Amino acid sequence: MRRVAGAHRIDYNHAMHPLSVDRDLELPLSRQVADQLSRQIRDGALQPGERLPPSRNLAQSLGIGRITVMAAYKQLQTDGYVVTRVGAGTFVAELPITTTDVATASPLALTTWGEQAVAAERDHFRPKIPAHIEYDFGFGRTFPHAFPYDIWRKLLGRYLSTDDTLLSRYGSAAGFTPLREAIAAMVARRRGVHCTPDQIVIVNGVQQAIDVIARLLIAPGDEVLVESPGYTEAYELLTVYGARLRPIPVTTQGIDVTALPQDDAAQLVFVTPTNQFPRGGTLPLPGKLRLLNWAAAHGAFILEDDYDSELHYGGDPPTALQALDQHDCVIYLGTFSKVLFPALRLAYVILPQRLVPPFLAAKRLIDRGSPTLTQAAIADFIVEGHFELHMRRLRRTYRARRSALVQALQQLTPSLTDYAQLEAGLHVMARLPDGMDEARLVQLSAENHIHIMPGAPYHLEPQPPPSVLLGFSNIGVERIEAGVREFGRIIGTLP
Amino acid sequence: MRRVAGAHRIDYNHAMHPLSVDRDLELPLSRQVADQLSRQIRDGALQPGERLPPSRNLAQSLGIGRITVMAAYKQLQTDGYVVTRVGAGTFVAELPITTTDVATASPLALTTWGEQAVAAERDHFRPKIPAHIEYDFGFGRTFPHAFPYDIWRKLLGRYLSTDDTLLSRYGSAAGFTPLREAIAAMVARRRGVHCTPDQIVIVNGVQQAIDVIARLLIAPGDEVLVESPGYTEAYELLTVYGARLRPIPVTTQGIDVTALPQDDAAQLVFVTPTNQFPRGGTLPLPGKLRLLNWAAAHGAFILEDDYDSELHYGGDPPTALQALDQHDCVIYLGTFSKVLFPALRLAYVILPQRLVPPFLAAKRLIDRGSPTLTQAAIADFIVEGHFELHMRRLRRTYRARRSALVQALQQLTPSLTDYAQLEAGLHVMARLPDGMDEARLVQLSAENHIHIMPGAPYHLEPQPPPSVLLGFSNIGVERIEAGVREFGRIIGTLP
Repeated sequence: MRRVAGAHRIDYNHAMHPLSVDRDLELPLSRQVADQLSRQIRDGALQPGERLPPSRNLAQSLGIGRITVMAAYKQLQTDGYVVTRVGAGTFVAELPITTTDVATASPLALTTWGEQAVAAERDHFRPKIPAHIEYDFGFGRTFPHAFPYDIWRKLLGRYLSTDDTLLSRYGSAAGFTPLREAIAAMVARRRGVHCTPDQIVIVNGVQQAIDVIARLLIAPGDEVLVESPGYTEAYELLTVYGARLRPIPVTTQGIDVTALPQDDAAQLVFVTPTNQFPRGGTLPLPGKLRLLNWAAAHGAFILEDDYDSELHYGGDPPTALQALDQHDCVIYLGTFSKVLFPALRLAYVILPQRLVPPFLAAKRLIDRGSPTLTQAAIADFIVEGHFELHMRRLRRTYRARRSALVQALQQLTPSLTDYAQLEAGLHVMARLPDGMDEARLVQLSAENHIHIMPGAPYHLEPQPPPSVLLGFSNIGVERIEAGVREFGRIIGTLP
Repeated sequence: MRRVAGAHRIDYNHAMHPLSVDRDLELPLSRQVADQLSRQIRDGALQPGERLPPSRNLAQSLGIGRITVMAAYKQLQTDGYVVTRVGAGTFVAELPITTTDVATASPLALTTWGEQAVAAERDHFRPKIPAHIEYDFGFGRTFPHAFPYDIWRKLLGRYLSTDDTLLSRYGSAAGFTPLREAIAAMVARRRGVHCTPDQIVIVNGVQQAIDVIARLLIAPGDEVLVESPGYTEAYELLTVYGARLRPIPVTTQGIDVTALPQDDAAQLVFVTPTNQFPRGGTLPLPGKLRLLNWAAAHGAFILEDDYDSELHYGGDPPTALQALDQHDCVIYLGTFSKVLFPALRLAYVILPQRLVPPFLAAKRLIDRGSPTLTQAAIADFIVEGHFELHMRRLRRTYRARRSALVQALQQLTPSLTDYAQLEAGLHVMARLPDGMDEARLVQLSAENHIHIMPGAPYHLEPQPPPSVLLGFSNIGVERIEAGVREFGRIIGTLP
């Protein structure tokens, strides 16, 4: 259809659908034009050999610059949609095919692991966090108080000003060597852990460590012994690998070693011996030895999650389980996320010698190694003494808060019982009176702007005795008593 | 055995083995003492009820401070090895068991995946990098020239000075939202990719993206079509998941779409359509459409690795394959590692809508999401225009180098042929004369301090035609000609 309109001659290809451009879109106009024309060509609305409008004309009809249209045509030529012949114009290229008529995508066929992952997501417990929180007894995310950000910035800056030869030279799938050396010295000193730096691998958080271990050791149907109550978030990942979880009860002093099974089914035992999560309490020495003997005799590995070893307030923490291991069966996990800032997402695993090669093989395959820049900064942070200083500051702060919390609980909520005496961690788990509606209490608290965590999600048994977890990492010491008082008031309203 | 020696009474428990301390060790003396005593108690060398030497005496006999011994005893008490009775002394605690006699650890039973990972590590090709490199034609690691580190430091600093509420609020397993928005706009503008930010997931490098995709889609025995020569490092990971790789030949213009199989066996096709790696060249439009139609008809996903889309020097790069996808079957991969700094280890995957929920479920499980701090900085880096500026600088630099390299090859090493005309990427792949000993050439070059990469590891076929890859990301433009001249000399020495 040719329309001659005065001095502006507009040639329309009779098959070309009108284009439209929208200046309000972030997408550049030339890209909009190219996208639309390419679509028409692919669909066959514009046929091979047809001539596109001269750039000047199309520009005018769309009210955009000629250069914009020329840029669009250039992209179309680069992509192979058109051919520009100087002096003749721009023509749709020979295109033997158009996009197929297959209407719908074929159904998605996930692997078993994939389906398990989707199921886990569906069943995953998500705490309802109140929109407005007056008293925050949540936990898990520490907001470092007076974290020396200026020091951190300086350390990071050291490694940013040059090219990354230094980082490359000392980095590998295992992690930045100076950091592994610093950790080896630190855990020997602080935790009694015996290892060489070669046994240490830096990982993207404890979750990644568990993921790799599961991949190496857990086949569908394999049994894993877990504490209940326990760190169910980690267990979730194990079940996605097809692990069958066998819950072992927990006492006031860690896992009940008298309940360890007689058979050899279990491949792995997941424990928090230094401060049982979430109940609190330390596994005593005879219990540690019994657990180690059991693992050695049954050919199982022990996964020791030493997540809060830095957060013991009543003196140095008990020596790690790994220190007692003479059978190369303890896999030790430590993390920086709880004590530096969670955005770091860095942790380390200390492996029995025989697990080092497979773990490294896996780590290299799945991501080539954790980012080295932050590792270098953490290494200096440790070696130059800032880490220890920061830990002392944290411990002082949290000790005072825990103290205030326990005191307030004792005085103001006497119906809450059975909380750990061990001065450690970032929360207190307390038993509610038998028969109390735990979910209702959490709900009511949220409605009154108090954020607490229910205890049920940490248990594998379907109807555990009612309990709650009150964290103190997010609440200032001066607000704790008032918060517990208010919480006590709410408890009083329940039957 | 009691030995009375004047004023210094030294009580030795007759069963206690002598301790030894080493001041040269990094390990604190108190920890050394505690470790040794605890070992003796566990092994039964020291029996329950036996009295340890008074701290003063032990300190004297070891030549260390009394406070040091007291600290060791305190740790032993915390750990449960001893009991200190005021006025009476420190006594070995009741310990019903000692460590078991199981002599050797049971054999390591890895999963199939674990064994495959170990095998891959064993077979993994490791280029021999010369100790001293005169001319570095290696590639893969870019050393950013004039990377604006000061800007980067400032951006990181923005997010370090406050607590991480901001990062937590906008972070998730999918990644930092403002970054995903910035990427969506960027890929629409630069690559023609159509997506919403919700389709984008930030990952720890392309390797992690491939790992998650394999977990979701590849069961043992599943077939994956791959380019050969191709990005064999990625293929390695697929084989660990049990994938059967089916190599498809590569032309001067990308994957040979006429060689796509008729059957429905393949789950996945791995392609580099914008600039074929490693051969170079762009898949033309009819080939792209044919590939897409094929995938739609056969129910397969296409994994488009757009690794170097920013590194096109002869004008804007061809539009991405994903832009043409009307059947929701293209998984698009982009990375920052090649263009910022590799230590960052950050990449992104743009998923077909139906893969978003499973991918997110997996990502949350395996590491909860990539570290948010660098993501926030990259988002600002893009949105404030520094990224584009930096890319332009890089392209100028690399364009000049590639030009110099190709010119030098043409003039000085005419026996090298078949290198891509497309001005893109960080290397050139060249065919050697038939029958030339590729490995010997690489070896000789290394001995002459020239680092080049052999072509064979990039092929799946066992004896591909001999070829080499010459990179230019690590060598200054002024050295290229001399390097090629020297290389040509070495070629001349071969039969």
